[in-house]
Amino acid sequence: MANIGIMGHGVVGSGVVEVLTKNSSSIEKKAGQPVKIKKILDLKEFNDSPYKELFTKNPDDILEDPDVPIVVEVMGGKEPAYTYVKKAIMSGKHVVTSNKELVAQYGAELLKLAKEKDVNFLFEASVGGGIPIIRPLSECLAANEITEIIGILNGTTNYILTKMKKEGMRFEEALSDAQQKGYAERDPSDDVEGYDAARKLAILASIAYDERVDYHRIHTEGITSITKEDAIYADYMGKAIKLLAICRSLGDRLMLRVSPVMIDRLSPLANVDDVFNAIMVRGNAIGDVMFYGRGAGKLPTASAVVGDIIDAVKHLETKKKNVWSRENDDNVMDIMETETRYFVRVEYDDEDKAADAVKSIFKDCQLIMCNDQSLKNELGFVTSTAKEKELASLFEILIGHKDIKSIKNKIRIEHNL
Amino acid sequence: MANIGIMGHGVVGSGVVEVLTKNSSSIEKKAGQPVKIKKILDLKEFNDSPYKELFTKNPDDILEDPDVPIVVEVMGGKEPAYTYVKKAIMSGKHVVTSNKELVAQYGAELLKLAKEKDVNFLFEASVGGGIPIIRPLSECLAANEITEIIGILNGTTNYILTKMKKEGMRFEEALSDAQQKGYAERDPSDDVEGYDAARKLAILASIAYDERVDYHRIHTEGITSITKEDAIYADYMGKAIKLLAICRSLGDRLMLRVSPVMIDRLSPLANVDDVFNAIMVRGNAIGDVMFYGRGAGKLPTASAVVGDIIDAVKHLETKKKNVWSRENDDNVMDIMETETRYFVRVEYDDEDKAADAVKSIFKDCQLIMCNDQSLKNELGFVTSTAKEKELASLFEILIGHKDIKSIKNKIRIEHNL
Repeated sequence: MANIGIMGHGVVGSGVVEVLTKNSSSIEKKAGQPVKIKKILDLKEFNDSPYKELFTKNPDDILEDPDVPIVVEVMGGKEPAYTYVKKAIMSGKHVVTSNKELVAQYGAELLKLAKEKDVNFLFEASVGGGIPIIRPLSECLAANEITEIIGILNGTTNYILTKMKKEGMRFEEALSDAQQKGYAERDPSDDVEGYDAARKLAILASIAYDERVDYHRIHTEGITSITKEDAIYADYMGKAIKLLAICRSLGDRLMLRVSPVMIDRLSPLANVDDVFNAIMVRGNAIGDVMFYGRGAGKLPTASAVVGDIIDAVKHLETKKKNVWSRENDDNVMDIMETETRYFVRVEYDDEDKAADAVKSIFKDCQLIMCNDQSLKNELGFVTSTAKEKELASLFEILIGHKDIKSIKNKIRIEHNL
Repeated sequence: MANIGIMGHGVVGSGVVEVLTKNSSSIEKKAGQPVKIKKILDLKEFNDSPYKELFTKNPDDILEDPDVPIVVEVMGGKEPAYTYVKKAIMSGKHVVTSNKELVAQYGAELLKLAKEKDVNFLFEASVGGGIPIIRPLSECLAANEITEIIGILNGTTNYILTKMKKEGMRFEEALSDAQQKGYAERDPSDDVEGYDAARKLAILASIAYDERVDYHRIHTEGITSITKEDAIYADYMGKAIKLLAICRSLGDRLMLRVSPVMIDRLSPLANVDDVFNAIMVRGNAIGDVMFYGRGAGKLPTASAVVGDIIDAVKHLETKKKNVWSRENDDNVMDIMETETRYFVRVEYDDEDKAADAVKSIFKDCQLIMCNDQSLKNELGFVTSTAKEKELASLFEILIGHKDIKSIKNKIRIEHNL
């Protein structure tokens, strides 16, 4: 019998209890012994819960119980999760967490501490919800030099972009639809601004390159500026707009970026719709491998948490290797030094003059002649590939040109996907 | 420094040497120590190889060397692989293998032996080539009751079916094309008859249900009877034909089948083309999760083998849990007791009479009115869902009917994919 203490009884926490209960016999078989929930920490009241006698409001009922070797942190947020997890590890307890904010911010420190204390710190659920990605990346693909990780890591934004693409919704409509369905928070900024995806990308990159990647240093753009008109152009060009989290190994440094990107409609990632997530990993031996599934939600996330719990129970006495170990403050390239190409929409008074202006500024550009009725007084074009800083200065010149009224939007294009 | 002995220097074996050499520094970092190839067993001569001094023709140079704790078996085939692997385990050596025939036939026995001898027996490369599936299924998804596994597990047949779909080739043409490209063997029966996929399905099912599944008991049909006309009908019906390996949990027994199946064109599996493999796993917590990548080939398979080698090096002193343990001779359902539905093509002299015959025999069937020029004197229809044995007796009646000249083909249909 292995006792666990669960900290948090929100969506994920209650899912963990549900999965542990529903699948108890197969879990016992795989863990080698029954898994027993000894205490659940939550400040709310759960008087109607069948587990009501397990609830406590005092974290020390779990953290100081020598009979609880495994702590499951599913509260989310940095505090008090960080304090509790640190204390658990200091007390020699194994920790399982689904908390991407915790792992992205304190992962390196907590892994180091776990190593010193000879315990396991497992966080499969922190990226991709239920999709197995942490273990496959750190173990199964360990033979590869990872050249690229390209992920649709946020289900909320993918749902919004899918609605915009398939139903012609505006961003605000699609967001409101997502909120009604419970896919987006009341304050959606963490999702729609790309921060959630950036944290997850930092975790994946840290594992792939065995050194901490600071998510604050990831160039992050959200999808709030994506319009219906962008979706119309994308469709016309045979492309789809996705919020992609990309990590690319360039020499000894990493290009890291979260931003809306146009990709070919036939790319495997282009057809990952709704709240689904997908992560494509490119290695120098494996080639492309893709992982696809529900990146969020009660039971999918709980599936990953409970998978870690089973692993922790199986390895109560043997510590697993750390998934990343090194500190490096200088592994992220300045985004301005990286190369890309853009799809751009400009507003004009006179089409011919605007086209001449674009062609004079962007030498090798390609004009996109989309005659959709809803596009008025605007011109679309695709730049050639160049460094971000060079393109940025060309955009400055473009804005200042007398025949260009405004840049309505610009979206990066990724080929080779 | 961890020494390994590699048995076999064919496609996979030479790939393993290549990956270990090319990625040696990152592999050392992940394994925690350098991995050194001490000996390579192969009966051929490799006088031009930079590793020529490592070659031996005597298996005991590896099996009896106390300085080689890890044996990598990449010879393929049952013998002498089985004898060597057994001897390696008996001598207390960890074994990594890519040999699906070995694992499907002797996996249960070798896992038991490995447990007794306290060594690891790892075989990630035996299913899905480089795609991580063994570890994700046995570890990451352990929290789930697995309800279904649906895989495109054979790259050769998937390549052939893709050519038939996209280029209108006949089976024989597509096979010959695959042979020219090196995707199919001179004797292709193991692939095209479905045996290779059946072995891999047995391995996956054994892991998912923690008990040995005998691949001889899997109902197995290949793709040799699939014609250009079937592909035309599939296209007309908005479907794709794939060779699917399916394991479905029905109560306390398993439905296991390898056969050509029509699936909806929008299903994630329908768009897995060419030599790519994909495995969809359905669990009662995770929902659907899919793994996609190169299911064969030198470097992708070597990627999985070397991943296992790294894992073996990291766990030289600690044994990992077995992935399946129980024997069960009665876990496979009689295929005749399982339910399905078919798409059927019949040949006739008189269309109206044939349609009447079909409708009188298959009450709830649906006639498929495809007017493609190349379809002559034939009628397509879809049966309702029923037990295989009931459908089989209806097919008997159909064949005997005076207005039906022949059944040209019948292909199962899977909805809900």
